Amino acid sequence: MSNISTADITDFFNPRGIALVGATAKPGKPNNQILRYAMQMGFDGTIYPINPTKDEIEGLKCYPDLLDIPGPVDLIIVSVNPSHCIKIANDIKTRRESKGDAGAVIVVAAGFKEMGTEEGIRIQKEMIDLITGCGARLIGPNCQGVVDAYHGVNSTFSVPPDTPKGGLSIFSQSGAFATSFLRWAKDLKMVGLNKFVSLGNMADVNFTELLKFAAEDEKTKVISLYMDGINDARSMIDIASKVTKKKPVVVIKAGKTNMGTNVAYSHTASIAGNNSIYDGAFKQAGVIRARSVADFYHTSRCFDKLPLPKGNRVCIMTVVGGPSTICVDELVLSGEVQLAHFTDELKVNLSKYLAPSANIGHPDGYIDMTASVTEKMHSDVLKLLMADDNIDGIIFMTTPPGFIKDEGLAQAIIEGYNSVPADKRKPLLSVLLAGSAVSTCRRILEENGLPTFEYPDDAAHVMVNMVRYHNYLNQAE
Amino acid sequence: MSNISTADITDFFNPRGIALVGATAKPGKPNNQILRYAMQMGFDGTIYPINPTKDEIEGLKCYPDLLDIPGPVDLIIVSVNPSHCIKIANDIKTRRESKGDAGAVIVVAAGFKEMGTEEGIRIQKEMIDLITGCGARLIGPNCQGVVDAYHGVNSTFSVPPDTPKGGLSIFSQSGAFATSFLRWAKDLKMVGLNKFVSLGNMADVNFTELLKFAAEDEKTKVISLYMDGINDARSMIDIASKVTKKKPVVVIKAGKTNMGTNVAYSHTASIAGNNSIYDGAFKQAGVIRARSVADFYHTSRCFDKLPLPKGNRVCIMTVVGGPSTICVDELVLSGEVQLAHFTDELKVNLSKYLAPSANIGHPDGYIDMTASVTEKMHSDVLKLLMADDNIDGIIFMTTPPGFIKDEGLAQAIIEGYNSVPADKRKPLLSVLLAGSAVSTCRRILEENGLPTFEYPDDAAHVMVNMVRYHNYLNQAE
Repeated sequence: MSNISTADITDFFNPRGIALVGATAKPGKPNNQILRYAMQMGFDGTIYPINPTKDEIEGLKCYPDLLDIPGPVDLIIVSVNPSHCIKIANDIKTRRESKGDAGAVIVVAAGFKEMGTEEGIRIQKEMIDLITGCGARLIGPNCQGVVDAYHGVNSTFSVPPDTPKGGLSIFSQSGAFATSFLRWAKDLKMVGLNKFVSLGNMADVNFTELLKFAAEDEKTKVISLYMDGINDARSMIDIASKVTKKKPVVVIKAGKTNMGTNVAYSHTASIAGNNSIYDGAFKQAGVIRARSVADFYHTSRCFDKLPLPKGNRVCIMTVVGGPSTICVDELVLSGEVQLAHFTDELKVNLSKYLAPSANIGHPDGYIDMTASVTEKMHSDVLKLLMADDNIDGIIFMTTPPGFIKDEGLAQAIIEGYNSVPADKRKPLLSVLLAGSAVSTCRRILEENGLPTFEYPDDAAHVMVNMVRYHNYLNQAE
Repeated sequence: MSNISTADITDFFNPRGIALVGATAKPGKPNNQILRYAMQMGFDGTIYPINPTKDEIEGLKCYPDLLDIPGPVDLIIVSVNPSHCIKIANDIKTRRESKGDAGAVIVVAAGFKEMGTEEGIRIQKEMIDLITGCGARLIGPNCQGVVDAYHGVNSTFSVPPDTPKGGLSIFSQSGAFATSFLRWAKDLKMVGLNKFVSLGNMADVNFTELLKFAAEDEKTKVISLYMDGINDARSMIDIASKVTKKKPVVVIKAGKTNMGTNVAYSHTASIAGNNSIYDGAFKQAGVIRARSVADFYHTSRCFDKLPLPKGNRVCIMTVVGGPSTICVDELVLSGEVQLAHFTDELKVNLSKYLAPSANIGHPDGYIDMTASVTEKMHSDVLKLLMADDNIDGIIFMTTPPGFIKDEGLAQAIIEGYNSVPADKRKPLLSVLLAGSAVSTCRRILEENGLPTFEYPDDAAHVMVNMVRYHNYLNQAE
């Protein structure tokens, strides 16, 4: 019996059964919410609430103890006071040594090393030694744990079970940071989730291991990381440089300053490390470091939703001069992108559809359709741009004039984008200035998988990140 | 009769009558929209549509010619083909020399110098010479003109007449840029407008003059500028350095790159100039240069809505560790802000209201209320922070736990903010992560004049800008 071999990390994402230690029947309590979310996630194994005072919670049979669970249970979620955690860890050890399951443990509870107290540090170490000593693996403590959208696993109280499925796998030392992204994106289906891991104090399973795992996971299209600080920077970067050959890795790294590092320590007991060293290491490994939270959100979701660019030649299709100037500035400042060259043939074809006052190609790669634009012009122009092999990406920008209807505009954009076969498509970013005045257009585009932006520079930065990744792959070949 | 003296710039903002040359009865056309907006704006003088083929438009008596208008008409909006503009300019000259009015002319029409053609340059010069030669002043051409929210003037087809009133005066070479901001802000009343000027080709009235004017305008609380490029940089900066002693000036300057400059030229015939020279000049003059479009929007609106900070000591009140780390990083990186010092007395008082697990003052100036927070804790803590003279600004950050109600949270924040008299208040920025999941809280706070943010770094940058302005005033004293 291989009961002391080390468990596989897949037990977190595709377990045969799930136990929740600390389950409660009280509505509104985090431990009740965790149980409800776990049940609502569509998991097809058995869920076991553990609570010695109850026979049943939320209609599920309740067990007094981990050792009483009859069937195989691979994933144990521990959400009890730290003072109880050593007892639970011993139960896990006993269970693992007797039945061979209980290979994946998520310790949601806080009050360990991040407290900065001797007691917190001691209990964390003792608990980890017990759990890893019997070959089980641990995520946390002080975390929200795991969501697997395809296998129906959810150990959080904050990632809604109806979060749309997709290609994003997000691993974060801050649970709040990652869940904020998913909640921000949810209503407009702006991103689709595959795997979520809130790592907390990261006492065992870490970024390096998750990166390796997600690189091999077929449904993961982009890997996004929120980092406070890591202990194994060298090996993490080493693995990342291999993973980025297969799929994009986007990171936001907090703790740039000493004061930020102090916050990070009180948060997850992390030491943030030297910021500029990280900067260089990420760059060399082909990891895309987001310049802001908005950049992290948008870059991650665009890699999920859109095809990669096949080159660095980007064109602008606009009706707004000022915002476009800002956008072109940011594209060019990056040093990664060039404005696409319009052939004479393309210019002649564009002029057939646009008003005589339109600006076609001043500068090259730039079209101002002017305020005399119609809905149909949007699809006509987009079709030409999508079909042109000299263009690798498109940024569309508008504050729609009053006579343009939101629905019609959205349909014209979708029609233009879909006018070429899927393998010929290129990233299209739509900047809809004017906030809620264009909310219907925004909703239709997002629900059809076309990312929208409120600000021209945000779109430029995402296009730069996508082209940067193309350029990295191209050089690496 | 002083019929050849130079008109006062106030004629644009507070005219006795307004004429629209090119008025049309066709719904949906820009020139019909301009007329409707002018009428809906609450202007208390007479509006004169000019159109030789109609007796009446939108219920207003129509005149064939500028010279036929009986009453005094100070503001002439010209929205006709450039080929007609010389005739109109001659009418303005005749009118000004005979009746002494017609001192303010807005040429909305495009097709002048920005075309880059000899013809366009020639017509623009001829028109300007005629208009300024008789002492009239001109805004444009190729612009949307003027809005004055308090005097009920609106020459645009894109600034809605029901835009909320307030302390923002915005002057922009891009009409689309400025109207996008107002449309973005409108539904949640995120900013209040005083004066709007879309400058277009800026052939006569320019930033320098408008800055001087707005500095003296009592209702203007913040002056915000979108610039492509200017010809009189030296005198503009000279004036700006005087204006910033009185009120904040926020700028976004496009055309940072040669390619961006090319776009700017095709847009408003502007030469953008050297970016880093502008950077230094703005800094020295106390002009706050926004780092992004979002930064421009948010900084402008926070100067409109909030009191200025009285010092550089900022504290963080949060339940989310990761986003707070990002926020503290950005505050500290600026070199302008320091985290506030919590006195022992304050810490004791805070601990009376918060859970034992709360982090009070690690690091100094930082409070993590933890997920065991209640609605009431928010107002209790805020009251203490608002009353403490060692704190000059507050950033509040949350992804509200499920058991916190949106309305209750918003009311608690408002109660905390209003707990001190108006002259004791300090800027409070609320970062509501989680997008539309917190839309009710966002709406209530915004409608009560408390700015909200989606991203922690955006809030940090705005706080930095506000403190930077305080530091500038402090050094200048």
